[in-house]
Amino acid sequence: MMEQERVVNGVNVTRLFGTIATIKKEPGIGRFQFRATNRWINGTHNEAKVKDFFGAGKEDDSRKEAYVFDEDEPAVLLGEDRGANPVEYVLVALSGCLTTSLIAHAAARGIRLDAVESRLEGDLDVRGFLGMTDEVRRGYENIRVTFRIKSDAPRETLQELVELAQKRSPVFDIVTNPTPVKVTLET
Amino acid sequence: MMEQERVVNGVNVTRLFGTIATIKKEPGIGRFQFRATNRWINGTHNEAKVKDFFGAGKEDDSRKEAYVFDEDEPAVLLGEDRGANPVEYVLVALSGCLTTSLIAHAAARGIRLDAVESRLEGDLDVRGFLGMTDEVRRGYENIRVTFRIKSDAPRETLQELVELAQKRSPVFDIVTNPTPVKVTLET
Repeated sequence: MMEQERVVNGVNVTRLFGTIATIKKEPGIGRFQFRATNRWINGTHNEAKVKDFFGAGKEDDSRKEAYVFDEDEPAVLLGEDRGANPVEYVLVALSGCLTTSLIAHAAARGIRLDAVESRLEGDLDVRGFLGMTDEVRRGYENIRVTFRIKSDAPRETLQELVELAQKRSPVFDIVTNPTPVKVTLET
Repeated sequence: MMEQERVVNGVNVTRLFGTIATIKKEPGIGRFQFRATNRWINGTHNEAKVKDFFGAGKEDDSRKEAYVFDEDEPAVLLGEDRGANPVEYVLVALSGCLTTSLIAHAAARGIRLDAVESRLEGDLDVRGFLGMTDEVRRGYENIRVTFRIKSDAPRETLQELVELAQKRSPVFDIVTNPTPVKVTLET
């Protein structure tokens, strides 16, 4: 007889716990490598692609086509606005990761959510990028994220979920803590 | 008589230097605020939008439509693969920012480039996200970026540009250094 699978917030919790059990037995299964390529087009316009990755012990080729992202700057930053700019993509990444962390950990605890929305703001002084001063940093000085959650769960529970999302989110970790990046020029 | 505008690598260097001169006179012009919103759809699928921002002393409403980004996880990470995942978006952001920094600073120095490509890899152990161990971090343990540049400029010059791109890139700064993020739950 097939066991009934439990789904909360659209997350298959039975499979989630199955994955955890599998990784517990064989920790190497948890190691992933994600990838992107980028091609300069013109001026501040370039194009990034995301397709294959390594995970769960093998090359994953389940994606038939690459996701393609135009990146550019708006006119005021000397671009032609053919896509969001790179620091806006950071907010996209952070918003998605906090949301998924919140949803998945709520599901694991059996907490049902009806709606989750967030808005993000990041303060950036372009004098850092332009090399005009060392008094300001080049990246965001501050990022603010505001969540709005619709659920029957008590407010304290929702507040705990917002804390847990930050504690578990990979992108929150990448942004708030130093991540080593090695850049090389191919010969 | 109109002064001839100088364009290198598709970057209007005359306007770039004009912008720097303007900000030098009035540093507040350099302060930007970028934004994103996110809406959970189902399971690991959510949607981020990027449109307006504040910059150069005013609300910028030059974008008529929002850029919309689907974020999801592939099947092996319990999603339906309706978009790149959040940590892949981090690589998209980093690739675009390093590329634009390289191109713009090359242009400012009058160095012409014919082609710039890069590939990025990030190592991530999902046990951190799953809360299975505190021995691994939740985000990328390492990110590697490899540039391939086509140009008549000497290799030492290209190597300097790769260093300068890292020194000036906002996203490189955000990823390699701690960035404060404040998350709140709206009442």
